[in-house]
Amino acid sequence: MYAFSRAVNSIHSEDVKQLMKQASGKNLISFAGGMPNNDLFPVEQIDEIYNSLPEGLKKLCFQYGPSSGYPPLIKSLETYLKSKGLVVGDNKILITTGSLQAISIITQEFVNEGDIILTENPCFVGALTVFETFGAEIQSIPIDENGINIEALKSKIQSLDRQPRFLYITPNYHNPAGIIYSPERKKELLEVLSGTGIILIEDDAYSDLYFDKEEKHLLKPMKSFGVKDVEIIYTGSFSKILGPGFRLGYMLSSEEIFDKAETVKQGLDTCTSTFMQILANEFLAQNKLEPYVTFLRSEYLERKNLLQKYLKTYMPEEVSWNEPKGGFYVWLKLPAHIKSTDVFKESVAKGVVFVTGRTFDPAGRKDDRLRLSFSNMPKDQIEKGVKILSEAIIKVLRNSKVVLS
Amino acid sequence: MYAFSRAVNSIHSEDVKQLMKQASGKNLISFAGGMPNNDLFPVEQIDEIYNSLPEGLKKLCFQYGPSSGYPPLIKSLETYLKSKGLVVGDNKILITTGSLQAISIITQEFVNEGDIILTENPCFVGALTVFETFGAEIQSIPIDENGINIEALKSKIQSLDRQPRFLYITPNYHNPAGIIYSPERKKELLEVLSGTGIILIEDDAYSDLYFDKEEKHLLKPMKSFGVKDVEIIYTGSFSKILGPGFRLGYMLSSEEIFDKAETVKQGLDTCTSTFMQILANEFLAQNKLEPYVTFLRSEYLERKNLLQKYLKTYMPEEVSWNEPKGGFYVWLKLPAHIKSTDVFKESVAKGVVFVTGRTFDPAGRKDDRLRLSFSNMPKDQIEKGVKILSEAIIKVLRNSKVVLS
Repeated sequence: MYAFSRAVNSIHSEDVKQLMKQASGKNLISFAGGMPNNDLFPVEQIDEIYNSLPEGLKKLCFQYGPSSGYPPLIKSLETYLKSKGLVVGDNKILITTGSLQAISIITQEFVNEGDIILTENPCFVGALTVFETFGAEIQSIPIDENGINIEALKSKIQSLDRQPRFLYITPNYHNPAGIIYSPERKKELLEVLSGTGIILIEDDAYSDLYFDKEEKHLLKPMKSFGVKDVEIIYTGSFSKILGPGFRLGYMLSSEEIFDKAETVKQGLDTCTSTFMQILANEFLAQNKLEPYVTFLRSEYLERKNLLQKYLKTYMPEEVSWNEPKGGFYVWLKLPAHIKSTDVFKESVAKGVVFVTGRTFDPAGRKDDRLRLSFSNMPKDQIEKGVKILSEAIIKVLRNSKVVLS
Repeated sequence: MYAFSRAVNSIHSEDVKQLMKQASGKNLISFAGGMPNNDLFPVEQIDEIYNSLPEGLKKLCFQYGPSSGYPPLIKSLETYLKSKGLVVGDNKILITTGSLQAISIITQEFVNEGDIILTENPCFVGALTVFETFGAEIQSIPIDENGINIEALKSKIQSLDRQPRFLYITPNYHNPAGIIYSPERKKELLEVLSGTGIILIEDDAYSDLYFDKEEKHLLKPMKSFGVKDVEIIYTGSFSKILGPGFRLGYMLSSEEIFDKAETVKQGLDTCTSTFMQILANEFLAQNKLEPYVTFLRSEYLERKNLLQKYLKTYMPEEVSWNEPKGGFYVWLKLPAHIKSTDVFKESVAKGVVFVTGRTFDPAGRKDDRLRLSFSNMPKDQIEKGVKILSEAIIKVLRNSKVVLS
């Protein structure tokens, strides 16, 4: 329901809104939402945690906390980040109300109206919303299956008359493209940024959700590479490993950036919910995270495999897609002459929704892709959903041929 | 602990920071924090609610929700506001992550750098922090025991070369002054604003906390007065009637203002914690609020009475203060020639803290007052705290006489 509204807002199309309205009463099959399925949440674990909280801690849940975050959670996050190869060291952690708030804080700290922000194309739509709210000029760089296009990035930086404030990327199980950056690409990227003064925002919401543990080393945060002359702000989230309803995220940055960020944070919502921070901290400190994400990995892997299987079965040969190695997303490629917005109109009328490609293009134009999220999918609906979507694509393809002929 | 940091930040004084550091190991008596006491929170009620949540609702706690808020909570708030005489009607409710986020959203919606915001003097320091973050020019108007000074407000508006964006006030149990606006003053205020295009922000965090139910009618929101040509945005909070740790607030505004506010909200933190909203909604919907605030009223009344008693017993005759009819605060007045910052230095060294007067002056100067909060006070510490504070004041008074003579 909520992801719809973002998709619909992004589509900015009255007729699609009308279709959505008509469809909203129906039992829609949704590949749209970039969220976990309600049935996958660790409800029992949190029940157990809540009901074993000592009285004093339970009372603390109700109280204000420090703007920078609940100190035991900060400590638990240090251990958690260390397990990813990321040593906090001289850097500081700021707890935020979801990782989108971290992006919002960073933008408020560094960006004035008209300043340039570099992003990938496609780019996480939530971040685009933030950047647009602050009146930034967004300049985007295409990505391929190994990450951002280095030559395009170099040319972009050279072509600009002002220094961009930062480059925002989601290197691990990219939203929406589903890719991970290769280690080589990460190194090349850091070389390009080196000495430019362009800050790198490394948004890492999905790296726990790999399908093959042998590939875990590929997910090592760039912030851990020890490159001295690139300022990196690392952001993370509990939305994909605990639940978006907790609204918990964090950022790791130099102390100087942290100090200003803390002041901005104080003016945004005083502090993040102590209640949610205490539950999340116990989830980490009681070592409940790893067994839970192990469960999630197998659940998502199964959904990914089903989606791949039925895409192969039903999609017309003109359509291609990636096979993700983790995360939530498949990024479908349509023939260049048809638009995902047109596919959406056909598809929603038959009860299947997804997010159109142009939603993720900062310019709102490039529309030959569509994002399928399998995270929120009941397994037994995947085949039906793909079948309907394929039929919608085939219909749009046929119509386009009629128009062309 | 947390309120200290705000007080210390506001004092901007290195020597006070040093004193605080030395004192932080000690068992401080704090009149500083504008928060409830940990022992007063409705822990049992929330336990009961949490453990009776149906499975489906519990799962929903973990999920994203609409940016505007969890629909059943919006509905419960409609009923709650109606009991205050405030009918939602054509207006719309936006749930926010604490009411400070509402203030932040409104500021982001209406204020550009250099724009003028009108405030009371003294003014809630959290709001001042927000206004300063956005680079607003703050113009303040003195208040007396019945509310904002009407003549001063008129002159201020006339003297300005630009139209202020809005006037921000906390009319009920003012923070820090502890007063309530008289009905006459509210009417006069609305007359002054009428037709000026200056929006009124009516921040109403404390109106449930009256000591005498016969005075409840005095707390009627101005937004309910039906004045057509003054745009009023009403903000409220769960921090004082449930717990600040929930980070739940809301704003009630015209649909036009709501629409933009919702977009800003989406860019700040996507949505407010569903978990916290569901618990708060059950607290309202299961009618647990009224018995709980009845309990709070008697607890705070007792603390207020003890504080008044010991202020009368120990304070030197040069010092005066108000007797609040609700809320959290007593606003002590020192003789004009001594400063509350100097009293603070003496007092913190002896283990008693409060918030200095100049913290609440937008210009950070006027310092002949100090704020005593009784909400967070263990009853058995009030006498000792007041005694030490009185001695600190007497010492500063003596020193000032030595200097004068």
